[in-house]
Amino acid sequence: MKLSEFCQKLAIPFSGEEREINGLNALQEAGQNEVSFLENPKYASQLSGTNAAAVLVTEAMAQHLPEQCTPLIVDEPYIVLAKASAFFAPLRLEHDLPESIIGEGTVIEEGAFVAKGSRIGENCHIMPGAFVGNNVTIGDNTILYPNVTVYRDCKLGSDCIIHAGTVIGSDGFGFATTKLGEHVKIYQNGNVVIEDDVEIGSNTTIDRAVFKSTVIKKGVRIDNLVQVGHNCVVGEYSVLVSQVGLAGSSNLGRNVVMGGQSATAGHLSIAPFTTIAARGGVTKNVDKAGVYGGFPLMEHRLWLKLQGKLARLLKA
Amino acid sequence: MKLSEFCQKLAIPFSGEEREINGLNALQEAGQNEVSFLENPKYASQLSGTNAAAVLVTEAMAQHLPEQCTPLIVDEPYIVLAKASAFFAPLRLEHDLPESIIGEGTVIEEGAFVAKGSRIGENCHIMPGAFVGNNVTIGDNTILYPNVTVYRDCKLGSDCIIHAGTVIGSDGFGFATTKLGEHVKIYQNGNVVIEDDVEIGSNTTIDRAVFKSTVIKKGVRIDNLVQVGHNCVVGEYSVLVSQVGLAGSSNLGRNVVMGGQSATAGHLSIAPFTTIAARGGVTKNVDKAGVYGGFPLMEHRLWLKLQGKLARLLKA
Amino acid sequence: MKLSEFCQKLAIPFSGEEREINGLNALQEAGQNEVSFLENPKYASQLSGTNAAAVLVTEAMAQHLPEQCTPLIVDEPYIVLAKASAFFAPLRLEHDLPESIIGEGTVIEEGAFVAKGSRIGENCHIMPGAFVGNNVTIGDNTILYPNVTVYRDCKLGSDCIIHAGTVIGSDGFGFATTKLGEHVKIYQNGNVVIEDDVEIGSNTTIDRAVFKSTVIKKGVRIDNLVQVGHNCVVGEYSVLVSQVGLAGSSNLGRNVVMGGQSATAGHLSIAPFTTIAARGGVTKNVDKAGVYGGFPLMEHRLWLKLQGKLARLLKA
Repeated sequence: MKLSEFCQKLAIPFSGEEREINGLNALQEAGQNEVSFLENPKYASQLSGTNAAAVLVTEAMAQHLPEQCTPLIVDEPYIVLAKASAFFAPLRLEHDLPESIIGEGTVIEEGAFVAKGSRIGENCHIMPGAFVGNNVTIGDNTILYPNVTVYRDCKLGSDCIIHAGTVIGSDGFGFATTKLGEHVKIYQNGNVVIEDDVEIGSNTTIDRAVFKSTVIKKGVRIDNLVQVGHNCVVGEYSVLVSQVGLAGSSNLGRNVVMGGQSATAGHLSIAPFTTIAARGGVTKNVDKAGVYGGFPLMEHRLWLKLQGKLARLLKA
Repeated sequence: MKLSEFCQKLAIPFSGEEREINGLNALQEAGQNEVSFLENPKYASQLSGTNAAAVLVTEAMAQHLPEQCTPLIVDEPYIVLAKASAFFAPLRLEHDLPESIIGEGTVIEEGAFVAKGSRIGENCHIMPGAFVGNNVTIGDNTILYPNVTVYRDCKLGSDCIIHAGTVIGSDGFGFATTKLGEHVKIYQNGNVVIEDDVEIGSNTTIDRAVFKSTVIKKGVRIDNLVQVGHNCVVGEYSVLVSQVGLAGSSNLGRNVVMGGQSATAGHLSIAPFTTIAARGGVTKNVDKAGVYGGFPLMEHRLWLKLQGKLARLLKA
Repeated sequence: MKLSEFCQKLAIPFSGEEREINGLNALQEAGQNEVSFLENPKYASQLSGTNAAAVLVTEAMAQHLPEQCTPLIVDEPYIVLAKASAFFAPLRLEHDLPESIIGEGTVIEEGAFVAKGSRIGENCHIMPGAFVGNNVTIGDNTILYPNVTVYRDCKLGSDCIIHAGTVIGSDGFGFATTKLGEHVKIYQNGNVVIEDDVEIGSNTTIDRAVFKSTVIKKGVRIDNLVQVGHNCVVGEYSVLVSQVGLAGSSNLGRNVVMGGQSATAGHLSIAPFTTIAARGGVTKNVDKAGVYGGFPLMEHRLWLKLQGKLARLLKA
C-alpha cells in the first residue's frame, strides 16, 4: 500500500515522501516500509531514533521526528493505529495458495484440516479435528492431537507434542478505547513461533503477536489450561504448570518454573533459573534468580515468614 | 404439557385448574404457562406476587400463594424442580427442522457443522470444526474460528469474532443435592445472547441460562480461558481479561474491567465503569464505581496500603 | 519385551533372570512383569517389599532389593525411567483394530470420529467434532458434546454428560529433568476412568495417569475450565467448581466441594464431606471434614477472623 493511500483511508492529510508501506511496528523496530505511532509522551525520546517511514503522532510531538520520517498528525494516534491495523490483516483462510507440502511418513487423519500454503515435515501426525492454517510450517515428528487449532503463519519446530484442544496463534487481546469507552480492535498481524522439543498440554492458549512473534523456545514444557499472551517470550526449558497466566510481553529466561495458577502482569522479565511458586503473582521484573511467591511477589522464604507472622496475628 | 400430566410424572396429587405448561421460571419472572418453586423460606414474600400457573412448595408455604396459582405440595421443592427441568429440555440435535438460512457472502468451510433451523446473516465465516446448533441466529460479518461450539438456541449479533475452541451455551452448573448427597441435574433451558461487536478469545466458556438468557452486551471484549456462568449479564464495552471467572448471575454494568484471574462470587452486581484489579475477588455488590482489588475485595488503594503494612509486619 | 532387550535399549549391563516385561510401575504396585525405579533414597525402605521383576536403582541402593528382583544399576534412575517409558507407549491412533461395537440407539453424528477397537453402549450421543480414541469404552446414555476429545484406552460410565471442548485422557505433566536442565518426557501409559452419572463442563481437562488410572467416581459434578492432574481420584458426588486445579495424585473423598479457583498442591488427601472455599489452596492433607479456605489453607472461620484482623491492621 502506498503511504498516500494509507493516509487517504484514514483521512489524514498527506504531504511527505511517497513510500510503499507493508505493515505497522513499534518505534524501535519499525523499518523503512513500516508505519509506527507514539501515544504516550513518556516515550517521546524514542521518536528521534526511529527508522519508520512515517509515524502517527500528535501535533506537539511531530517536531521530535527525524528528517526522513513523515509525521502523520492525528489527535488520537493509538485509535488511528488500531484502525490502520485492519489494513494489514491477512485473510483468515485462503484457498488459492499453492498446495501444502507434506513430508514423508506424515499422517493427516480424516477430519483434520490443513490449509493451503503450509509445509509439514516428516513423520508428523495431524489427528482428527486438528486445524492447520495457511502458511504454517511444522518440523519433523511433531504431533497435533485432536481439535488442536494452529492459526495461519505460525511456526512449529520438530519433536513437538500439542495436546487436544490447544489453540496456537489466536489474536492477542489488543484494542484501543475511545473517549466514549468503545473499543477498536488492533489486528494482531504477528505470529507464534514454537521451537523444537516443546510439549504443550490440552486446552492451553498461546496468542499471536501484535507485531513480530510470540516465542516458545526449545525444550519448554507447558501444562493444561495455560494462557500465554501476545509477544511473550518463554525461554529454553522453562516449565509452565497448569492454569498459569502470562500477560502480554512477559519475557522469561531459560529454565524458569512457574507454579500452578501463578501469573505475570506483563511487560516484564524474569531471570533465568527463577522459580515462581504456585499462585505467585509477578508484578515487576525479577532480576535475580531465586524462589519467589505471593502476590505481590516476594522471596518465597519471606512469604513463608509472613504466613507465620499472620498465624501469630490471628492468635493474638 | 398439561399441568395434570406434569403432576402425574412427578407423582404429585393434582387438584387445581388445568393449564398448559411450557416451562419453569423464577417466582418473579414466571408467566401464566409456567411453573415456579420456593425452597428457601427467606423468599416467601415473593409468593404472593407470582403470576406462575403453579408453584412447587412445601405444605407450610402453600397458604402464601395467590388464589389463581395452584400449589404443588412437595417435601423438597428444589429436588422436584430439578426433576421437572428435564421435561422441558430440548433435543440436543434435531435433523428434521427446516434448512438453515445462510446469508449472501457467508462461507461455511468444509468440516464446519451448521445444524438445521438456524439463521446466519451475510458475510459470516464459519471455519472448519466449528459447530452451530439448532435454531441459532447469527448476525452479519461474524466469525467463528475453528473448533468453536455454539449450542442450540443461542443468539450472536453482527461483527462478532469468536476465537478457536470457545464454547457458547454449554449447560450452567446447576443441580439439586438430595439428603443423601446425590446430585439431580437442573436442565439449563435458557440460552446465551451475544450482542453486536463482541470479541471473545480462545477456549473461553459462556454457559447458557437456567431460565431466560446469559447476556453479553454490545462491544464487550473477553480474553482467553474466561468463565462466564449461567445468567450473567456483562454490560456494554466491559472487558474481561484472561482467566477471569464470573460465577452465576453476576451482573456487570457497562465498561467494567475485570483484571486477569479476578472473579466474582455470583448473584451480585458491579457498578458501571468499575475496575477490578488482577486477582480481585468480588464477594458482594460493588455499588460505587472505582478501582478495587484483593480478596475479599476492598478499594485498590487500601489493598496497596495493606501490602505496605504487611511488609512492615514482616520486618518487625 | 524381554528384560534383556529392555536393558540393551537403555545400554544397561544385564545379568539377571530373563523375564517378559510389559510395563513400568511404582515400587509398591509393580508386578512380576513390570520394571520399577527408586530415585529418592527417602523411599529406600520400599525396595525390600517390591514384587517388580527389576528395579532401576543407583549402585548404593541395589543391596536393599529382594533376591528375586533384578537390580538395574544406573546413575540417574528417574531419567532412565523416563526414557524407558517410551517403550510402552501405545500407538496414538490405530486403524487395524477390530471395528468398534456401537450399541442400539447410539447416534454418532457426522463429523464425529470413533476410532477402532472401542465399545460404546446404548442410546449414547457422540456429537460432531467429538473424538473417541482406540479401545475406549463408554456405557449407556452417555453424551459427548461437540469437539470433546477422549484419548485412547479411557473408560466412561453410563449416564455421563461431557460438555463441548473437554479433553479426557491427555498426557499428565510428567518429565525428568537432566543435570543440564533439559526435560525427558515420561510417557503417560495409564488412562482415565469416569464412573456412572458424572457431568463435566466445557473446556475442562482430565489427564491420564502415568501408571494405572485417574479416577472420577460416580455422581461427580465438574464445572468448566477445571484441571484434574494425572492419578487424581475424585470421590463419589464431589463437586469441582469452575477453574479449580487439582495437581497430580490429589485424592478427594466423597462429597468434597472445591469452590471456584481453589486448588491442591498434589500428592495429598482431602477427607470426605470437606468443603474448600473459593480460592482455597490445599497445601497438605485435610484429615478432618470441615470448611476450609485461604492459602495456605486454614479453617474458613479462621480465615474470616484473619480478614477482620487485617482490616483492623489497615486502620491502625
